[in-house]
Amino acid sequence: MLEKPFITLTTDFGLRDPFAGLLKGVILGINPRARIIDITHNIQRHNIFEASQVIGMSYRYFPSGTIHVVVVDPGVGGHRRPLLVSTGHHFFIGPDNGVFSSVYEMSAPDYTVIHLTSSHYFLPMKGSTFHGRDIFAPVAAWLSRGIDYHKFGDPVEDYNRIRLPGVTLTDGKTLKGTIISIDHFGNAISSITGDDLAKLSPGASLHNFRITFKNRALPVADYYAQAEGAGLSALMNSFGYVELFVYGDSAAGKFGIKTGDSVVLSLKKRGRGD
Amino acid sequence: MLEKPFITLTTDFGLRDPFAGLLKGVILGINPRARIIDITHNIQRHNIFEASQVIGMSYRYFPSGTIHVVVVDPGVGGHRRPLLVSTGHHFFIGPDNGVFSSVYEMSAPDYTVIHLTSSHYFLPMKGSTFHGRDIFAPVAAWLSRGIDYHKFGDPVEDYNRIRLPGVTLTDGKTLKGTIISIDHFGNAISSITGDDLAKLSPGASLHNFRITFKNRALPVADYYAQAEGAGLSALMNSFGYVELFVYGDSAAGKFGIKTGDSVVLSLKKRGRGD
Amino acid sequence: MLEKPFITLTTDFGLRDPFAGLLKGVILGINPRARIIDITHNIQRHNIFEASQVIGMSYRYFPSGTIHVVVVDPGVGGHRRPLLVSTGHHFFIGPDNGVFSSVYEMSAPDYTVIHLTSSHYFLPMKGSTFHGRDIFAPVAAWLSRGIDYHKFGDPVEDYNRIRLPGVTLTDGKTLKGTIISIDHFGNAISSITGDDLAKLSPGASLHNFRITFKNRALPVADYYAQAEGAGLSALMNSFGYVELFVYGDSAAGKFGIKTGDSVVLSLKKRGRGD
Repeated sequence: MLEKPFITLTTDFGLRDPFAGLLKGVILGINPRARIIDITHNIQRHNIFEASQVIGMSYRYFPSGTIHVVVVDPGVGGHRRPLLVSTGHHFFIGPDNGVFSSVYEMSAPDYTVIHLTSSHYFLPMKGSTFHGRDIFAPVAAWLSRGIDYHKFGDPVEDYNRIRLPGVTLTDGKTLKGTIISIDHFGNAISSITGDDLAKLSPGASLHNFRITFKNRALPVADYYAQAEGAGLSALMNSFGYVELFVYGDSAAGKFGIKTGDSVVLSLKKRGRGD
Repeated sequence: MLEKPFITLTTDFGLRDPFAGLLKGVILGINPRARIIDITHNIQRHNIFEASQVIGMSYRYFPSGTIHVVVVDPGVGGHRRPLLVSTGHHFFIGPDNGVFSSVYEMSAPDYTVIHLTSSHYFLPMKGSTFHGRDIFAPVAAWLSRGIDYHKFGDPVEDYNRIRLPGVTLTDGKTLKGTIISIDHFGNAISSITGDDLAKLSPGASLHNFRITFKNRALPVADYYAQAEGAGLSALMNSFGYVELFVYGDSAAGKFGIKTGDSVVLSLKKRGRGD
Repeated sequence: MLEKPFITLTTDFGLRDPFAGLLKGVILGINPRARIIDITHNIQRHNIFEASQVIGMSYRYFPSGTIHVVVVDPGVGGHRRPLLVSTGHHFFIGPDNGVFSSVYEMSAPDYTVIHLTSSHYFLPMKGSTFHGRDIFAPVAAWLSRGIDYHKFGDPVEDYNRIRLPGVTLTDGKTLKGTIISIDHFGNAISSITGDDLAKLSPGASLHNFRITFKNRALPVADYYAQAEGAGLSALMNSFGYVELFVYGDSAAGKFGIKTGDSVVLSLKKRGRGD
């Protein structure tokens, strides 16, 4: 039995149907001591990219040993394989459709991918439309009881990955990124990270860059309220990404920002005093 | 004290107001060791039929001994009685308005219905609009502490049931069912079960039937992705019900399917080889 | 370690992003035994008044010793201070922007307000947009482990309060209140409480008052179903507030009721028999 048998859930089930509750019932039937935490059940239906992003930005805030179940699974019941991924510190359980792409990227090369084939750990299968309940939840529960993860199947190397939006560097001083998500507040998060800035110019902060979005130069702030009255602005957010926002309003709503839109950062010339 | 004091919640409270949270606070004040699991708080307002259906499809996935609180309660504070239902394996607590109809049907004849009258287990009543907080939650909490369920009141026989949509058999080979729910993905679940097929023709699978919806014959699939490009299709879902779906899209949205619509299954003539 | 380390969450994060889940991950990383209960994550964005109201109506239903984290925080990262409030029975953690105004009012004068400055209890700060994760969640977790609340900073007296809508008494027999919230069912809750009625006329019930809303006199009921067919009606709800409702329908939707609308109660002349 793990000392802290934490299991998180990330799905596109929504919160109207009882699907998320059923996963919890199944888990608690196998391990009554499991502690289950919802990351979100409102991933856009079948949006594997969004699921990959959400679990990638979330998992490191959970205790070491946490088991993360991710069920965004349009291919359920067909040829796509069920997987268990171990990074040594965290476990991930879900379909082999690319939902773990950001996990692979963040923990490379220290991870193992197991094809779940030990069906005695599954529920007796009554159909092929709900592997969340019948495969992923019970495997997570057995794993949380301390079963060695190698017992659930054999390692595979040919698992699926999706292409994650990155950042392009041009002319040695310009970074081109894209808007990768819009949050509940209408803030627009770009693919450009603090690491990208640091690589281009060690020690640089966002203030050393000229930020352009749809031909508009954006003021840079350190926190939201600092940009009161300044319209569309940019800051480095608490996940380490460049974020566009409007203080007290929805940037996405007000400026029609969509995922996939481009953001450009150019390193300013430094003055003599720098 | 129950070894696994699990309590589930199924309500029409929504997730904006603090109502569901208050039930949890009250429960934990009485039994700090209780483990509370949300099945859903998004039952359509006052929809007793939907609540009955959701708890009916859900409860058996929870561990034996689980206490299920169901609060869809338009008659709160009036003449309708508060009930506790025991099936020997599960407990149910809620109003006597038919929300437990599917529980009665599934566990007949092995269940007892108690009229909750032992008001010393209730919160001191400050009004008559929130029995979820003042009666159902505290009774669930005391029950989870191991109080015998007979102590909460006397058995009754004249509890209310609502009519659940069934399946009609005509001419010995045709089943007529209705759409009973539309899920988050736009899949349309019918009232026809695998048991209905088996009763008509032992050993038969859905492939042995011709499925008609609004004069359209539907292809049958074993899993969603198998029907890629096939438009409106049917399969046997993981709850044992015939389900209409469109791969990667919303069947309900695309074909205007509504609860109450008819679905017809006719047994195909078997060829000599069968 | 507190015997019952309960932590509630009240935020405007919504349920699509992983923000609420991340608070839970951070808390459990510090105190694996913490029990976390969602009050709501659907406070309207940046609505400090709504947050104050929701926590004020909710906290007393949780066990003594519960820690309540409230994150509605448009000023995050700027000059507003992070606070911890102790009432002796409950703890509250959140920004100094008035979200605790109803707590101050309800527990006056028995509360202490601490300015959170002991940053060794915070997460290492990576930015200034998410103090819920980086300050409030970890402080709640450490507090739930039994750290004395005085250790988190020094008491302050100049904390912020917002004006809460009250009730006006005119001519000794008329109470004027306002609609302070609309719930999920479309019921409209006013600022007038049972205490207000009692102060005006000891022993009086709502039936002793003439209730007027937009020049319409409303019938008074004891519970919802009693007003079947009666249209817009009033009752004393289970939180002790005068509430306008339509049985089986949305009062707000049907009569266009909005927060801020006025409700007037006039004490009826009592007959000789009273």
